[in-house]
Amino acid sequence: MTTPAYDPNNIFAKILRGEIPSHQVYEDEHTIAFMDVMPQTDGHTLVLPKVPSRGLLDADPAVLGPLFTAVQKVAAAVKTAFSADGLVITQFNEPAGGQTVFHLHVHILPRYEGVPLRQHARSMADGAVLAAQAEKIRAVLRQASSGAA
Amino acid sequence: MTTPAYDPNNIFAKILRGEIPSHQVYEDEHTIAFMDVMPQTDGHTLVLPKVPSRGLLDADPAVLGPLFTAVQKVAAAVKTAFSADGLVITQFNEPAGGQTVFHLHVHILPRYEGVPLRQHARSMADGAVLAAQAEKIRAVLRQASSGAA
Repeated sequence: MTTPAYDPNNIFAKILRGEIPSHQVYEDEHTIAFMDVMPQTDGHTLVLPKVPSRGLLDADPAVLGPLFTAVQKVAAAVKTAFSADGLVITQFNEPAGGQTVFHLHVHILPRYEGVPLRQHARSMADGAVLAAQAEKIRAVLRQASSGAA
Repeated sequence: MTTPAYDPNNIFAKILRGEIPSHQVYEDEHTIAFMDVMPQTDGHTLVLPKVPSRGLLDADPAVLGPLFTAVQKVAAAVKTAFSADGLVITQFNEPAGGQTVFHLHVHILPRYEGVPLRQHARSMADGAVLAAQAEKIRAVLRQASSGAA
């Protein structure tokens, strides 16, 4: 049951290095956030620390405060941007835990009364749709940081 | 879509005040952790901050670092105690997000290859079983804090 080492060629590491693009919604010193390309719900967003770790257990504890502060900030914007009724926050570890990309990341899933989630990591969303959704979230974050309601 | 205020008589507030018992596995200055009485999987554990908030969005950001540091610590112990293959971490907000108790809390769900989760908050576990499970987790935490492998 030894956990494999961090693989620096996982897809999120490549996004962090700018080698492949993402529909980014947020970035600060410690974290970035972008749209999940296989969304389980409209507005499905991921937040990840820049410092590499495979999952939660091997993360430097110092990463967790900045990571979840960013999750809180982005989650509030996602909820507003998508007029969601609720939010589910998930973080998966190892294949048995549903993890498919092995760089620690947190899912933000806006939820709506009576609307079930789609299955995790099954089908690719349209890039133009994701780009528009990312812009909705960025607009809310801009408003929040400019002090507007 | 105004979010209701924090209700100081929710069941987790009562546990925090010691008014009702729990199968506690961990406590520090900022957090406590105890067994979920309606577990979705063996070893289903909850971690919550002592400072009241209804969910993630109304939490003081300063709470999040200590909260998720405790989640990391307890999750590692749960994984060891139950020889789990993976871990799912979830945090639900508002009824549409699956929240049933309105004091911010984080679920730690050990996962096993090929074993599906049970449904959330459906049936009560046997108290003696939960007590034994809590003791398994506490034993791992004691070993970890004493520096043993």
